[in-house]
Amino acid sequence: MREVCVIGVAMTRFGRYSEIWMEEFAREACEAAIHDSGVRREDIQVAYCSQSFQGRVAGQRILKDLGLTGIPVINVENACAGGGTSFHATWMAIAGGFYDVGIAIGVEKMTKGLIPPNPEDLEGLLGRTYPGRFAMMAQRHMYEYRTTREQLAKVSVKNHQNGSLNPYAHYRESLSLEAVLNSRMVAEPLTLLQCCPVTDGAAAAVLCSKDIAKKYHDQPIEIVASVVTSGIYQGVRKGDLSSESELSQRAAAKAYEMAGMGPEDIDVAEVHDCFSIAELLHYEELGFCRFGESGKLIEEGTTSLDGRIPINPSGGLLAKGHPMGATGIGQIVEIVWQLRGQAGKRQVKNPKVGLTHCVGGATPGIGQGACSVHILKK
Amino acid sequence: MREVCVIGVAMTRFGRYSEIWMEEFAREACEAAIHDSGVRREDIQVAYCSQSFQGRVAGQRILKDLGLTGIPVINVENACAGGGTSFHATWMAIAGGFYDVGIAIGVEKMTKGLIPPNPEDLEGLLGRTYPGRFAMMAQRHMYEYRTTREQLAKVSVKNHQNGSLNPYAHYRESLSLEAVLNSRMVAEPLTLLQCCPVTDGAAAAVLCSKDIAKKYHDQPIEIVASVVTSGIYQGVRKGDLSSESELSQRAAAKAYEMAGMGPEDIDVAEVHDCFSIAELLHYEELGFCRFGESGKLIEEGTTSLDGRIPINPSGGLLAKGHPMGATGIGQIVEIVWQLRGQAGKRQVKNPKVGLTHCVGGATPGIGQGACSVHILKK
Repeated sequence: MREVCVIGVAMTRFGRYSEIWMEEFAREACEAAIHDSGVRREDIQVAYCSQSFQGRVAGQRILKDLGLTGIPVINVENACAGGGTSFHATWMAIAGGFYDVGIAIGVEKMTKGLIPPNPEDLEGLLGRTYPGRFAMMAQRHMYEYRTTREQLAKVSVKNHQNGSLNPYAHYRESLSLEAVLNSRMVAEPLTLLQCCPVTDGAAAAVLCSKDIAKKYHDQPIEIVASVVTSGIYQGVRKGDLSSESELSQRAAAKAYEMAGMGPEDIDVAEVHDCFSIAELLHYEELGFCRFGESGKLIEEGTTSLDGRIPINPSGGLLAKGHPMGATGIGQIVEIVWQLRGQAGKRQVKNPKVGLTHCVGGATPGIGQGACSVHILKK
Repeated sequence: MREVCVIGVAMTRFGRYSEIWMEEFAREACEAAIHDSGVRREDIQVAYCSQSFQGRVAGQRILKDLGLTGIPVINVENACAGGGTSFHATWMAIAGGFYDVGIAIGVEKMTKGLIPPNPEDLEGLLGRTYPGRFAMMAQRHMYEYRTTREQLAKVSVKNHQNGSLNPYAHYRESLSLEAVLNSRMVAEPLTLLQCCPVTDGAAAAVLCSKDIAKKYHDQPIEIVASVVTSGIYQGVRKGDLSSESELSQRAAAKAYEMAGMGPEDIDVAEVHDCFSIAELLHYEELGFCRFGESGKLIEEGTTSLDGRIPINPSGGLLAKGHPMGATGIGQIVEIVWQLRGQAGKRQVKNPKVGLTHCVGGATPGIGQGACSVHILKK
């Protein structure tokens, strides 16, 4: 298996683009990533594009506007973990020796319409929708570990603070703890400002085999772990009402093994904070603290920009936004910028190793359907 | 790159399953393919699932009913070439050394609803829909090469004859030339019985690395070429009004090169006959005859079951049906059965090498968006 690097990244500012075709803003992200990488358009040999709601052959429709046609284009879908999946598939295509240079694309125009209910999802039809599910996890976490409403809300305060420093974030205003706690209740204890918004956007990354990376870019970032996996019936965390925990834990364990690293080696991470409680659960599942101690971690500022392990410096899904198929690649973009020292006002102090994590695709009976974890190294 | 074999295949009978959830009939196909392969469910390490209209994390929703959870599941989409793409991606995962055993799944419930128009497809909105586009190609072929209406209709007669011998085909009645010619006109010169029907169905294939294949199955079928590629602006065949020709030709050329073979080495093929004219065009693009001579090929019976190169012994899209994401895997299933000598009444005489070809995903400005060609060897 060959070693693979990321040599170019870009994203649109995440936001609402209801008047713009997705092909148009996705093309911008691809064009900028190619420019950033130093490769010529014609050097790109393969493309993977993730999306969930953009219709047939979305990748081809984006790439034709770039004149990037006649190459293998594979459209992938894995719900909220789609971006991580597209990046993983591009990594595989190069690591396996099939291609030398490829582009991973993620895009979503969420303002096109709401997520249609899955007629097989009886739990969902009975009201166990995303906010409801995550609210139950929050309730259980509060019960089991004495996690407080304030600790939950602080996740959103931190991420909006980070987002206020990120020109690519959907929301760029910092929020007070009171504003988060007093916003409209969606599902007890999760208030509106603890739920990620409806956001459009696109992101792209150019990957190549390590042996040729320096030819194109003087700061190639190594991919030292790339994992995609799916959920299982068993392994529900004790009293958690969800099997999400097991999935992210297992994906992270595999990634740490692949990289020959542990959570203590991670200097910065982007994790899937679709709701405030989700970020706390992921601190524990990814090994950034012990189970039950995530409330303390946010409380003590350990995951703030100037903390020991800054989490979601981009603003995360809560402030940067969550265009489903684009989110995983957007996380990669942020970590690459952080490792290169290009993250502007939200730059973390000299990080050497970064992690990205996305998870989603609620599937009746197995909890979350897909999870992706990547570890990148300067 | 490791050599890879197909060791198990299965499909549902293609047809209309409007009252059955797609998860249910797709599971049947997976279960039967796993049984056919001789692997234990727990030996399967990775899954790729193709579909275009089945919603988020379709693969996970299918596999959970089999208890096949906790493995990497990647959902792929490439319109009518989706099945070929899912098979190709599974091949890559094993050929690249990432996994030893994987399952490729294709499924579509077309009766769920019609294909929604793409708002960016201005040509489509102006009436250049699939039947119209293929009708123009037919008109041009008739003009350029004196291809006749009867020759076109004979494609459908042959494929329905083959379908009548296939218990897995949607339509199993043979049709007279008159019946095909006299059916309702859809787009001059294509009558209704020269257009593929709306069909539901699923198909699956189990793949493994060649070195362990005999452990599971005594007739492993080798994958000697696996190609996915996309269309381009240029390369429109002279006077053809379509760039589809260039795409299939290029994909086939790449596959022949990979296999170290030529069209003369192919003993049996499944090609993308979404309309009668499509099959004729593909004879030429895949090199089974020279350009302009496809009318003669069908006329002379060269592509009939007992001809020199039987094409679409399964009945093809015209009679077996065309559940989009499943079609490409359904073609693989038929070729594996033919190479194993398990094709019953439609068995071709001792074929050693078979080819599958699917193409689709009309993309404004580039013609067809995706094409996949595979060559399998006994």
